[in-house]
Amino acid sequence: MSLPSNNSNFVHHVLFYLKNPNSMEDKASLVKGLQELSKMPCIPFSNIGSPAATTREVIEKDYSISWLCVFESAQQEEVYQVHPLHLAFIENCKHLWQKVVIYDAETF
Amino acid sequence: MSLPSNNSNFVHHVLFYLKNPNSMEDKASLVKGLQELSKMPCIPFSNIGSPAATTREVIEKDYSISWLCVFESAQQEEVYQVHPLHLAFIENCKHLWQKVVIYDAETF
Repeated sequence: MSLPSNNSNFVHHVLFYLKNPNSMEDKASLVKGLQELSKMPCIPFSNIGSPAATTREVIEKDYSISWLCVFESAQQEEVYQVHPLHLAFIENCKHLWQKVVIYDAETF
Repeated sequence: MSLPSNNSNFVHHVLFYLKNPNSMEDKASLVKGLQELSKMPCIPFSNIGSPAATTREVIEKDYSISWLCVFESAQQEEVYQVHPLHLAFIENCKHLWQKVVIYDAETF
């Protein structure tokens, strides 16, 4: 499924700051968990990323993994938040991160 | 145009912190500028948003406007960065913001 570019959407962007940012194993565990999450039907578009090579001063690069979800509505994001698969992901992976920063934005 | 959910993509997420966050006029000017930018063919998916009603502690809500672009590649984001329309947007709108925070993430 894909999203048309002019929809009203709900953007949920999570930046994970890992406890061991240099551990490829920890990073791989988190990515594996997110890859499972990305299969949820309530998430029409998602992206698992890491900081790009761009280097302007205003670019925040200290996180380890970026998890972007675009939902069709705030209601769909609520479905995701309380879904057993999402709760299991948090339970299984929360030992990996020291901090998360989240931006939730609704189409203006 | 729309993006398939399993592509390798480049996420460019800009959070604008306005000088006058309570000015609806300033907000509207910025949104108008972004709406023009969103028509650029090098941006297959974009979203102009404002902080959602979600309220968990880890959610950053102090910005005024969220500008999310998903490009097909880092090269396409470079095309955007130096494009005359983007440079004109910065020139016309930069007086509106006190700060921007940017996350650039490439698919892991």
